[in-house]
Amino acid sequence: MQQGTHRRLRLGMVGGGQGAFIGAVHRIAARLDDRFELVAGALSSDPQRAQASAAEAGIARSYADWREMALAETARDDGIDAVAIVTPNYLHAPVATAFLEAGIHVVCDKPLAVSLAEGEALAKLAREKNRLFALTHTYSGYPLVRHARELINEGELGEIRVVQVEYAQDWLAEPIETAGTNKQAGWRTDPSLAGPAGCLGDIGTHAYQLAAFVTGMMPHALSAEVHTFVAGRRIDDHVQAMLRYPNGARGMLWASQVASGAENALRLRVYGTKAGLAFDQEHPNELWFTPLGGSAERLTRGRVTGAVAAHATRVPPGHPEGYLEAFAQLYKDAALQIEALDAGRALPAESLLLTTVDDGVAGLRFIDAVLASSAADGQWRAIIND
Amino acid sequence: MQQGTHRRLRLGMVGGGQGAFIGAVHRIAARLDDRFELVAGALSSDPQRAQASAAEAGIARSYADWREMALAETARDDGIDAVAIVTPNYLHAPVATAFLEAGIHVVCDKPLAVSLAEGEALAKLAREKNRLFALTHTYSGYPLVRHARELINEGELGEIRVVQVEYAQDWLAEPIETAGTNKQAGWRTDPSLAGPAGCLGDIGTHAYQLAAFVTGMMPHALSAEVHTFVAGRRIDDHVQAMLRYPNGARGMLWASQVASGAENALRLRVYGTKAGLAFDQEHPNELWFTPLGGSAERLTRGRVTGAVAAHATRVPPGHPEGYLEAFAQLYKDAALQIEALDAGRALPAESLLLTTVDDGVAGLRFIDAVLASSAADGQWRAIIND
Amino acid sequence: MQQGTHRRLRLGMVGGGQGAFIGAVHRIAARLDDRFELVAGALSSDPQRAQASAAEAGIARSYADWREMALAETARDDGIDAVAIVTPNYLHAPVATAFLEAGIHVVCDKPLAVSLAEGEALAKLAREKNRLFALTHTYSGYPLVRHARELINEGELGEIRVVQVEYAQDWLAEPIETAGTNKQAGWRTDPSLAGPAGCLGDIGTHAYQLAAFVTGMMPHALSAEVHTFVAGRRIDDHVQAMLRYPNGARGMLWASQVASGAENALRLRVYGTKAGLAFDQEHPNELWFTPLGGSAERLTRGRVTGAVAAHATRVPPGHPEGYLEAFAQLYKDAALQIEALDAGRALPAESLLLTTVDDGVAGLRFIDAVLASSAADGQWRAIIND
Amino acid sequence: MQQGTHRRLRLGMVGGGQGAFIGAVHRIAARLDDRFELVAGALSSDPQRAQASAAEAGIARSYADWREMALAETARDDGIDAVAIVTPNYLHAPVATAFLEAGIHVVCDKPLAVSLAEGEALAKLAREKNRLFALTHTYSGYPLVRHARELINEGELGEIRVVQVEYAQDWLAEPIETAGTNKQAGWRTDPSLAGPAGCLGDIGTHAYQLAAFVTGMMPHALSAEVHTFVAGRRIDDHVQAMLRYPNGARGMLWASQVASGAENALRLRVYGTKAGLAFDQEHPNELWFTPLGGSAERLTRGRVTGAVAAHATRVPPGHPEGYLEAFAQLYKDAALQIEALDAGRALPAESLLLTTVDDGVAGLRFIDAVLASSAADGQWRAIIND
Repeated sequence: MQQGTHRRLRLGMVGGGQGAFIGAVHRIAARLDDRFELVAGALSSDPQRAQASAAEAGIARSYADWREMALAETARDDGIDAVAIVTPNYLHAPVATAFLEAGIHVVCDKPLAVSLAEGEALAKLAREKNRLFALTHTYSGYPLVRHARELINEGELGEIRVVQVEYAQDWLAEPIETAGTNKQAGWRTDPSLAGPAGCLGDIGTHAYQLAAFVTGMMPHALSAEVHTFVAGRRIDDHVQAMLRYPNGARGMLWASQVASGAENALRLRVYGTKAGLAFDQEHPNELWFTPLGGSAERLTRGRVTGAVAAHATRVPPGHPEGYLEAFAQLYKDAALQIEALDAGRALPAESLLLTTVDDGVAGLRFIDAVLASSAADGQWRAIIND
Repeated sequence: MQQGTHRRLRLGMVGGGQGAFIGAVHRIAARLDDRFELVAGALSSDPQRAQASAAEAGIARSYADWREMALAETARDDGIDAVAIVTPNYLHAPVATAFLEAGIHVVCDKPLAVSLAEGEALAKLAREKNRLFALTHTYSGYPLVRHARELINEGELGEIRVVQVEYAQDWLAEPIETAGTNKQAGWRTDPSLAGPAGCLGDIGTHAYQLAAFVTGMMPHALSAEVHTFVAGRRIDDHVQAMLRYPNGARGMLWASQVASGAENALRLRVYGTKAGLAFDQEHPNELWFTPLGGSAERLTRGRVTGAVAAHATRVPPGHPEGYLEAFAQLYKDAALQIEALDAGRALPAESLLLTTVDDGVAGLRFIDAVLASSAADGQWRAIIND
Repeated sequence: MQQGTHRRLRLGMVGGGQGAFIGAVHRIAARLDDRFELVAGALSSDPQRAQASAAEAGIARSYADWREMALAETARDDGIDAVAIVTPNYLHAPVATAFLEAGIHVVCDKPLAVSLAEGEALAKLAREKNRLFALTHTYSGYPLVRHARELINEGELGEIRVVQVEYAQDWLAEPIETAGTNKQAGWRTDPSLAGPAGCLGDIGTHAYQLAAFVTGMMPHALSAEVHTFVAGRRIDDHVQAMLRYPNGARGMLWASQVASGAENALRLRVYGTKAGLAFDQEHPNELWFTPLGGSAERLTRGRVTGAVAAHATRVPPGHPEGYLEAFAQLYKDAALQIEALDAGRALPAESLLLTTVDDGVAGLRFIDAVLASSAADGQWRAIIND
Repeated sequence: MQQGTHRRLRLGMVGGGQGAFIGAVHRIAARLDDRFELVAGALSSDPQRAQASAAEAGIARSYADWREMALAETARDDGIDAVAIVTPNYLHAPVATAFLEAGIHVVCDKPLAVSLAEGEALAKLAREKNRLFALTHTYSGYPLVRHARELINEGELGEIRVVQVEYAQDWLAEPIETAGTNKQAGWRTDPSLAGPAGCLGDIGTHAYQLAAFVTGMMPHALSAEVHTFVAGRRIDDHVQAMLRYPNGARGMLWASQVASGAENALRLRVYGTKAGLAFDQEHPNELWFTPLGGSAERLTRGRVTGAVAAHATRVPPGHPEGYLEAFAQLYKDAALQIEALDAGRALPAESLLLTTVDDGVAGLRFIDAVLASSAADGQWRAIIND
C-alpha cells in the first residue's frame, strides 16, 4: 500500500443554511470534481441554525458570524483557501470584502452586489489583493455554451446581426412571498435584501451574461422596461429590453418569473451573416447550429471537438450532464486559478472562461441601464463598458 | 346513374403568374376543399406571360388587364363570384377597388395595402358594397391556432400577462434582390411595389395578427425599431418592438428576414395567470398548453375537441395537415360567407374566424405605429384600434 | 380573353361514401394538384347512401353498382380515365378486375387484396391490360421519404445494417367495433371484409412498404407473431417481427393499434456503415441524417436539394406540407403515368416512385409470411420476392 | 466555532485506472452526495499504473493486488466499508467474492458476472454474509425512471400490453478494438474478459433491466438472435429479441453498438390499457405520459410529485440533472442500506429501489436465454425467474 498525494483546496461557505437552494448546489458543485473540501461555514445568521446546517452538511468548523470566520480562518494554518458566498444579495459585498481583506479567495453568487458602486469597489479590491473573485454565472460552465462561444469567436457564424435571449420561469406567478413559507421567495422579492432589481437581477443578469459570454459582444445601448405583475409585490417580476450593439447588431432580452408553465427556460439564439445558433438551458447537451439556407445541425456534448468543450465535459456523448456539472465546472476553473495565484503562476489558459467580478460589474451596469431606461419610459440608455 | 348538384363558386385571380409563389398557393388552397373553381385570371401585366400562366394553371379565361377583367366578368352570367388578389402590395388597393366596385367578392393577400388611408378606404368600400373582403392571414386558418384562441377566450389561461411573438426567416440574409433572378425578392424589397414596410409588412404583420387573433387583444402602444442589415437594401429586413396592452399585459414582437438558418419560424407564446401556450407554425399539428406549476400538455390537431378546431380539420390525428390546409380553410370560410352574403343570410357562425379587411386595417395601423416609433428613436406610440 | 387548354383526367370512385375516412382523403388528394376531376362514383352499396354521398361530394354521375359503373363509363366518350377503389379490402380485387377489364386505370387503396393469389392475379391482369395500377402507400409520397431513398441509393449511408420500423396507433385499444357506430372499426376488424390480417394488413403493410421503399431492400426471411389484445376481437391488433435481409442486415418491425396515446406513429430508422437516418410520419417535413460518430442533421423539406424531392414538394421550406400532399403526390404521379400510357409514351422518370400493384403483391407476401411464422410459433419463414 | 459530526462511509475501488471510463464515473457518483470517501484502491493489475491512477484520483491507500486489499482493509480499524468493482466483467465474481468473504459491502458494475452460475453463487454469498450487493444499473437511478415505475405500480397505465425497449450506440460500428488504442473497446469485445455476451451484456442487459424495473414485469419467454456486424469481431455487436410476458403482454428489445449516429440511445416505451409512457435516457428530465385517446403530457423532474421521485432529485425543475446524478443516486441508496445493515436496522423504505445482485442474476438469465434462442435459430426459450 502506498500513499496518495492529492491536495484538495479548503473551502468555506457563508450563507446556504437549511431551506436555501443555492447553498446545497454550491456544495455539490465544489465537491463534484474533487478539487475542494468544505471545512468551515457561517451558514446562517442564526447561530443554532448555523450549527445545525453545518452538521447536516458535514462541515467541520461552524461559525455564528462571518466576520469572525474570516478572521479565524485566515489565522489558521489549515484555514480555508476560498470562501463561497451564497447569502442574499445585499450581503455579497460586505462578506466578500471581509474575506478579500483577509486574503481569502472568493466564489460569489450573482448578482455581484446591490449597487454598481459596491460592485466596482469589489472589483478594485479583488485586483489589489490579487485574489480570485469568481462569480457563479452557472450557465457559462456548460460545455456547449463554451463551444458556442468558440464557434462565434472562430467566425463560424460570420458577423453577428441578431441576438435573442430570454429567461422564463413561473415560480413567482403568484404572491407566494406573502405566505412566509418560501424562504427563496421571501428574500428575493424584498428590495432590502435583494437590491433594487427583482427578476431583473435574479435571472435577467443571467440572460445578459449568457448573451455577452457567447457572442463576445456587449450592447452599448438599451431601451427597457421592468414591470411587476403580481399585486403587492415590491420588486419587478418581469423585464423586457431592446439592445443595440456597437457593430450594428440588434437584440432583445426578456426575463419573467410569471411565465406560467416555464421552469427555468433560459434560451439564447444568435444569428450571424453565415449561420445561427440556438441553446436552451433545459437541454444543455445539445447546441443547434443553423447555416444560412442550410440544414440545422444538432451538436452534442461529447461529440463536438476542441479543447474548450473537452475541458468542461466529464462523460461521453449521450450520457447527459446537467446543471450541477456546469456549476462544478466553475469550481474546477476556480481551483485551477487559485492554485496558480497561490503559486504565483499565470492563470491556466483552459480556466480563463471562468466568470469573474468583471462580469458582475457588467451585470450591475446592465441593471442600472435597465432601471434608468424604464424610469424614462423606455428611452434608449447607453451602457458604458470599459 | 344520377346527377350531382354541387355548385362550386367561380373564382378569378389577379397576379400569380409564373415565378410567383403565392399565386400557386392560392390556387391549391381554393381548390382543396372543392368550394371554388378557378375560371378567370389576369395573372400578369405582361399579356404573353399572363396567357401562358393561365394555360399552365388550367384557367379558362385569361385577361391581359385586371380592369378589363373586372368589367367583363361582372357582365357575364357565369362571371366570377370572387377574385383572389395576389399581386405585389401596391396593387392590392386599386385591384380590390375595381372588383368591389364591380360587385365581386375579394380574397386578398396581405398586407392589405401600402398605406393606412388606402386600407381604410377599402374597408369602407367593402362595407358599402356588402361584399366579402377576406384577407389571407394564413396562419389563422390552422385548427390549433383557432383552438388556442378558444382556450384563451374560455379563460383557460386566466388573465393574459405576457405575449411573445416572432417570425424569423433567412431568405433575405444576402442581397439576392440585386441579382434580378428572384422575382419574390425583387418586388418585396422595392418600396415602390411593396410599400414602405419590408420585413415589417411581409411577415411582421403576420406575427402581429397571429398574436391579436389568438389573444383577442391588441396592444394600445408600442416602442419599436426597424432596421436594414443588408447593405444597399432599400427597405427594412428586421423589426423589433415592445408592446403594451390595455389590461397591463406586456409583449414583444420581432421579425427578421436575415435570421440565418430560420425557414418560416413564426412562433407565438402567451402566458396568463393560470397557464401558458405555445404555437410554432412549423409544427402546426401541435399546441403546447402549460399550466402554472404543472406539466406541459401537447395538444394535437384531431385530438382537441370542440367545434372550432373540428371545423378547420380534415384528417384524423397523426395525419399531419399543413400550410396548404390552413390556407384552404380561409377559402372554405370565404365560400361559406360568400354563399351567405349572396343569399342574404347571416354569416355562418363557424365561418366567423375568417380574417377580413379589418384585420388588414389593424395591420396597417401597426405598420404606421412601428415606423413612427422607429423614426422617433423608439418612443412609445399609441395604436388606435377602434 | 383567351381560352385555357388544360385537360384534367376524369376520375371515378368506388367506395368512400358517408362515414368513410379514406374516400374523402382520396378526393382531396386527387384534386389537390389539379390533375383529376371526379365525375363518377359508386360510393356505397346502398343506393340511397351512394346517391347522397355523391351529391355531397359534387360527383356528377352516381351509380348504385360498381359493375354497372365500369361498363357504363367505358362506353361513354367522356367516361372516366381512372377509378379510385376505396372499399373495404375484400372488394379491392373484384372491383379492380372489373375496371381493368373495362380498360380503365386503377388507383387502389392498400392492402391490395385479401389473398396473395388474388393479388398476383391482379398484377398479371394489370400488365396484360397495360393499365396503370397504383397502390396508395401514402407515405411514399412524402418528399423526404423519397429523399431518404435517394440518400441510401446514392450510398450516403454505406451498407445497410439495421432497419427498425414501427407503426403505432391507439384507436382500437378498446372493442369499439362492438358498438356498431364506428364504420371504420366495423369492417377493419371483420375478417370477412378486411381479410385475414387486421393491424397487420391495415398498418403493418405500410410499415413494411416504407422500409422497403426507403432502403431498396426486402427481407428474405422473418420470424413473427400476431396477437389480439382486445377480448372478443376476431382479428389481430398487434404484430411484431424480426427480419433478415439478403445482405446480412437485421431488422425489426412492429405495428399496434392498441398503443395507448399513439396517433399515427409510423417511424423508420435505418443504420448503415456510414450513417443512419430517421423519419417520423407525424413530422414529415424533417428527416434526420446521423453520420457515424457525428452530429445529427435535420434535413427539411424544401431545403434538401435534388430533383426527387423537388418533384414532390409544393411550397417553400418552413411551410409545412402533410399527409394530404403526400397522398396528392401519388395522384400526381398516377396522372403522369396515365397520360404516358394513353399516349403510348414511356413512363416519365420522375413518376417512377409511384407505388404499384407489385408493391401490393410484396405486401401480401409479407402478410402470408407473418401469418405462417406466427402459426408456427415464430419459426423463421422465407419471403420469396421475385 | 463548533465541530461537525457527519461521517462519510469509506469506499475502496478495484479497477478504474487511467484510461477507464466507468471508474471515474463511480468516483464522481460516490462523491456527489457526500456519503462516501474514497480511501483505498487497486485500480490496475499493473502496480505502477495502479499507483499513478490512485495518486491522480487522490486515493490514500493504493494496492497492487485486490486480494491483498481485501485482507488488509478488513484488518484495519479504519478499513473500507464498501468496495466499488469496476473491472472488466470476468473479474466481477472473483473480486466480489473476496470482498464479501472479508465482510465488505460491494457495489459492482454490470453485468454481474460472466456466467449464470457465477452470478447465482454471488447472490447466495451476499445473502449469507448479509452484506450489501448493489449492482449499478445506472438508469434506474433517474428520478423519472422511478416515477415511471410508480405510475405503473399505481395502475395509471392500466394493464400493460406492449413493451418496447432499445439501446443504440455507434461507437463499435468499426473494428476499433484492433487498433489497440481504445482500452474500452479492447476488453469489451474480448470474450475472455467480457464474457460470452458483447453488446448483449454491455447494453442489452441495461435495456432488459430498465424495462423490468419500470414495468415490474419480467418476460417468461423470448425469441432472439445476436449478430456480429463488424468483420473479425469475436463477440456480438447487435441483439434483437421478441418477448412474452406472463400477463399476455408482448415486447421487443434491441440493442446495437453499430447504429450509426446513435450516442447512448436507451429508450423505453410501455403501453397499457389506459395510457402509455415513454422515456429517453438522453433526455432524462422528462417523461412522457400518453393517455389512451388523449394528449401527451410532458412530466418533468422536479414537477412530478411524490416521495419516490423527490428522494432521487437534487435541484428544482428546469435545472437539468443527468447521468452522474442518476449514478450518484445508486450510491446514495447504497449508503442508506449500508448504514442500516451495519446498524442491524431494516433497510430504509426509500432506498429499496436500489438495484441488487438479484437484478444481476436476472440479467444473466436473460443473457443465457438470448444466447440459447439465438443458437436455436430464434426458437422461443423460457426465462425462469424465481
